[in-house]
Amino acid sequence: MDSKSIEKFKIKKIKNNSIKEFEDSIINEQPFTIFVNGYELVTLMSLPNELKELAIGFLASEGILENLNEIKTMEFSHQNSIIQVKLNKDIDINLFKKRTLTSGCGKGVTFSNLNDCSAVKISNNNLTMKADTIVNLMVKMQKNAKLFDETGGTHTSALANSDNIMFVIEDIGRHNTIDKIIGKSYLNKINLNNKAVLTSGRVSSEIIIKVLKQKIPILISRSAPTSTAVNIAREKDLTLIGFTRGNRFNIYNDLNRIKY
Amino acid sequence: MDSKSIEKFKIKKIKNNSIKEFEDSIINEQPFTIFVNGYELVTLMSLPNELKELAIGFLASEGILENLNEIKTMEFSHQNSIIQVKLNKDIDINLFKKRTLTSGCGKGVTFSNLNDCSAVKISNNNLTMKADTIVNLMVKMQKNAKLFDETGGTHTSALANSDNIMFVIEDIGRHNTIDKIIGKSYLNKINLNNKAVLTSGRVSSEIIIKVLKQKIPILISRSAPTSTAVNIAREKDLTLIGFTRGNRFNIYNDLNRIKY
Repeated sequence: MDSKSIEKFKIKKIKNNSIKEFEDSIINEQPFTIFVNGYELVTLMSLPNELKELAIGFLASEGILENLNEIKTMEFSHQNSIIQVKLNKDIDINLFKKRTLTSGCGKGVTFSNLNDCSAVKISNNNLTMKADTIVNLMVKMQKNAKLFDETGGTHTSALANSDNIMFVIEDIGRHNTIDKIIGKSYLNKINLNNKAVLTSGRVSSEIIIKVLKQKIPILISRSAPTSTAVNIAREKDLTLIGFTRGNRFNIYNDLNRIKY
Repeated sequence: MDSKSIEKFKIKKIKNNSIKEFEDSIINEQPFTIFVNGYELVTLMSLPNELKELAIGFLASEGILENLNEIKTMEFSHQNSIIQVKLNKDIDINLFKKRTLTSGCGKGVTFSNLNDCSAVKISNNNLTMKADTIVNLMVKMQKNAKLFDETGGTHTSALANSDNIMFVIEDIGRHNTIDKIIGKSYLNKINLNNKAVLTSGRVSSEIIIKVLKQKIPILISRSAPTSTAVNIAREKDLTLIGFTRGNRFNIYNDLNRIKY
């Protein structure tokens, strides 16, 4: 386990009015600032690990980065709280400024950002999954949520193929877990258009847009979607599953990718 | 129940490989853009209700608004997806061009940083609470989480005095629930420095900074804090409680405000 991820604190536990002193494991967070071509783009609050993955995934989600060949250099500084990304191409800062002002979360949230996805439709049939597999993979992901087990303070996401979990990511932010999955897949040259993403977190519009932009055909959550996320899934042919708990789940959009 | 908050969808429920068609209630989200003195400040993804409360609370959390007298006019447009706030004072727009994306559920963005809080320390002893009361108020808040009951897609927060819940807020974003509590308190001229905030959400640095800025002495969560939040609470004398479940909770910072 990464020692940077957890800090130990002496706390008091109260149960039925009795008090116990206790050494508790608490999850860390750290501000992480991404510069692109010298321009300060954003500061994310994140778990202080897999930061290269986070930077790459965030830039991909924002539409700034299309593939790793566009990166000239990536340099960390200030104890990894800053990354300087130099690209082999110019980016239009004014466009991005305008866009960041209109998209509060900066993560592709507004209607205008939704328009960025207008060309994206998941027409492929590269991946099908069995109902049993979905249930089993969610259990397996939760079993691998080591930081959650120790601190209760993380979200967990995972990348899976039709049979198995490929890797698991934990972070204090549910958006960050998805960006780190995308960044790690880019770094490891994993083709995303025949994979599924599992996540412990709720599926809001920002989350589904990140998944959609990578043409990932199946998104499986342990939690609830929003109505906007369901509408986007149905419009863009993304298979969306929620409330995956025990031996049950909800299918909000199917498209024959789930076999039962 | 506010009909705008929920949308109905026909979905499939899978349990033990058997399928049932079902009409499900799914939580809504909507982009909400705040203009201040004609400047487009931010777009938040939010539940489409209590938007005046959200705007006031967000501006207060960002240090833009200190009291309601500073507001000249507030006008909604575009079916309440935009609010134009005119203040009786100028604000320095350049201070708000840097964004920090939070770990947030639903929506998290803050322009402020911890340095803004350097002068804030909660030195008062205006509020004490009994351990039993803390347990009971968390149960009471959860019982009043009507939208969560129906959709599973919200966070819940509440304002409380030493004895009872004063009001409950639900939103798709845990940051929004805190901002709405602050905004509603401003609108109803509720003194915050002798109240407690309860929340279902995890306590990251952004959440505790919002509470700290209003000099709210006690923050009670059902979930985990981050290490940064615990450190801020200890430095700034804010009483911080987490994992309030059943008849137990953890005290991360006490300061004799909890009686057992």
